[in-house]
Amino acid sequence: MQTLRVELGSRAYPIHIGRGLLGRADLLAQFITGSRTAVVSNTTVAPLYLEPLVAGLTACGLDVVRIILPDGETYKNWGTLNLIYDQLLAARCDRQTTIIALGGGVIGDLAGFAAASYQRGVPYLQVPTTLLAQVDSSVGGKTAINHPGGKNMIGAFYQPIAVVADVNTLATLPDRELRAGLAEVIKHGLLTDLEFFEWIEANIDQLLARDTEALTHAVHRSCAIKAQIVALDERETGTRALLNLGHTFGHAIETAMGYGVWLHGEAVAAGIAMAADLSRRLGILSEADLRRVISVLERAGLPVSAPAIALPRFIELISVDKKAAAGRVRFVLLEGLGSAIVRGDVPQDALVGTLGAAG
Amino acid sequence: MQTLRVELGSRAYPIHIGRGLLGRADLLAQFITGSRTAVVSNTTVAPLYLEPLVAGLTACGLDVVRIILPDGETYKNWGTLNLIYDQLLAARCDRQTTIIALGGGVIGDLAGFAAASYQRGVPYLQVPTTLLAQVDSSVGGKTAINHPGGKNMIGAFYQPIAVVADVNTLATLPDRELRAGLAEVIKHGLLTDLEFFEWIEANIDQLLARDTEALTHAVHRSCAIKAQIVALDERETGTRALLNLGHTFGHAIETAMGYGVWLHGEAVAAGIAMAADLSRRLGILSEADLRRVISVLERAGLPVSAPAIALPRFIELISVDKKAAAGRVRFVLLEGLGSAIVRGDVPQDALVGTLGAAG
Repeated sequence: MQTLRVELGSRAYPIHIGRGLLGRADLLAQFITGSRTAVVSNTTVAPLYLEPLVAGLTACGLDVVRIILPDGETYKNWGTLNLIYDQLLAARCDRQTTIIALGGGVIGDLAGFAAASYQRGVPYLQVPTTLLAQVDSSVGGKTAINHPGGKNMIGAFYQPIAVVADVNTLATLPDRELRAGLAEVIKHGLLTDLEFFEWIEANIDQLLARDTEALTHAVHRSCAIKAQIVALDERETGTRALLNLGHTFGHAIETAMGYGVWLHGEAVAAGIAMAADLSRRLGILSEADLRRVISVLERAGLPVSAPAIALPRFIELISVDKKAAAGRVRFVLLEGLGSAIVRGDVPQDALVGTLGAAG
Repeated sequence: MQTLRVELGSRAYPIHIGRGLLGRADLLAQFITGSRTAVVSNTTVAPLYLEPLVAGLTACGLDVVRIILPDGETYKNWGTLNLIYDQLLAARCDRQTTIIALGGGVIGDLAGFAAASYQRGVPYLQVPTTLLAQVDSSVGGKTAINHPGGKNMIGAFYQPIAVVADVNTLATLPDRELRAGLAEVIKHGLLTDLEFFEWIEANIDQLLARDTEALTHAVHRSCAIKAQIVALDERETGTRALLNLGHTFGHAIETAMGYGVWLHGEAVAAGIAMAADLSRRLGILSEADLRRVISVLERAGLPVSAPAIALPRFIELISVDKKAAAGRVRFVLLEGLGSAIVRGDVPQDALVGTLGAAG
């Protein structure tokens, strides 16, 4: 087992990464101060991993409420959030109840925002079971639901008390979701770590073959890079915006297509390719580096261009992005591999060039 | 103008109290860092105070979005909250938009929780226009909406950047709401300040006659007492629970009657009388002090007993209170006038006695 720490002062917490951690309820139980937990999962993950987890927690003397939600990004909305509230209230869960998110990014976002808002906040643990959640969404305290007007528009910055990532759960992950998770792994390399990016280029086949050693390294490096950025800027007033490489375009794609049609990681992959393309148009990224970005995404089986979205609609969707400041959209761009920057002065013709080339 | 400070480290903020402050947009504008604000108000308050406020803000160079909600506790729910989100999104409000809550406790709770959760948090200002909001709900960062299963069940601890209380706005307040606000004023005296309680006993007629000097003193002392308690315990892990004197019974009354049938302050008044009655039954409050509590509430024109609620239902509603810990309800009780305590060991027969006497 490897352990990292997200350094956030009084809100600091550990990330444990390893094989078979789901079977170690003692690892989870040490973080739970009350006598009750509510495990939030979905209809796909629960049949695989819920009962072993509950058995372990029960053996530790904990009372466990099971909350099973429908599976998919399309359910990351108020209606599903309210199902959590209803069941917490029906079971008379109080402020000492610890919520455990057992699943992927959608479960983490829903359970995390429920924890942030139920009775004005209860503790929660992230137990991510997808690659995307293990390398990205379970770390950093971003929680949210979607609104018809935009992705992740309603939510909270609310840190978990711990993250426990069992890489064994990746064995049952559908191929498409494994690839979607790799988009965020590649993103982390591109942001700050050329060495890690080159390791991904060299090990992409092992990752796709689910070599647990390769996966453990990918999760560990990704969490370390993300934890470092989050520790510098918990509430995304500056540096943290770098983590949104590919997300301004990606969120627009997800909203345009309807939530759940493209997986988040797929939209981010196309978004990374577009951000790299925009960087090249602005003359800050070389053609050779752009090709390496496209190539590694393609080898991971990920899309590198957006679906057909009418240009005015695409521009409109991009302009409501949360990272906008004073009406100006700020793009995360690449100055090189392992070197990202935020720019608020992207000329319209370069943006139209990228959007046009993608459409 | 009098100014207090809520001492919460990096989240500290001032409370300004005085006459005519609504006309001093410069006072508000100094707290606004971006160029946009969204003023959230309701159909009762907006015709009286919105346009003067907007004119002042506009004169300070700010762009103002107006969001007008229906009036009443019955609208403190997800549907109304979503109206705020919809309008913020339609106006393309970004993370630099400051939300201003212009109204009573319901508007403060709705606008505050919208601020806590829109794009994971934007700054907000409280501009309370009712006595209840000025002496209580605008201070301390509690925001929430109701759920069919319980009052204030969904929300956040989220501090405003400032509170500006213009006592002139109390001139237009309906009598019933003025009296409801006095319940919280009386509560603050009972909690920690015998001298203030005795001042209320001596000045209740001036308060009911809306003497602005008396009202300013009542708002100032109430905010000072509340600010001190909140500074000790922002997230209600201990001391802050004292502020809930009368609220365990009061919330049960509100839920049983349907939100909005009894005003919050009316339910709290009956709840304070019941908490005092329970304290006497437990032998910690004298009969004479109980009579003084009842008397001042009655002179304020407030109810001192609960409506008819079947005993099993009353007990059920009390047991889901947020202040419950490990299944045990914790009651705020009085050891004397100006001296409140929290007790988790109230015998069932004493509770039934109080509930039976009230019903």
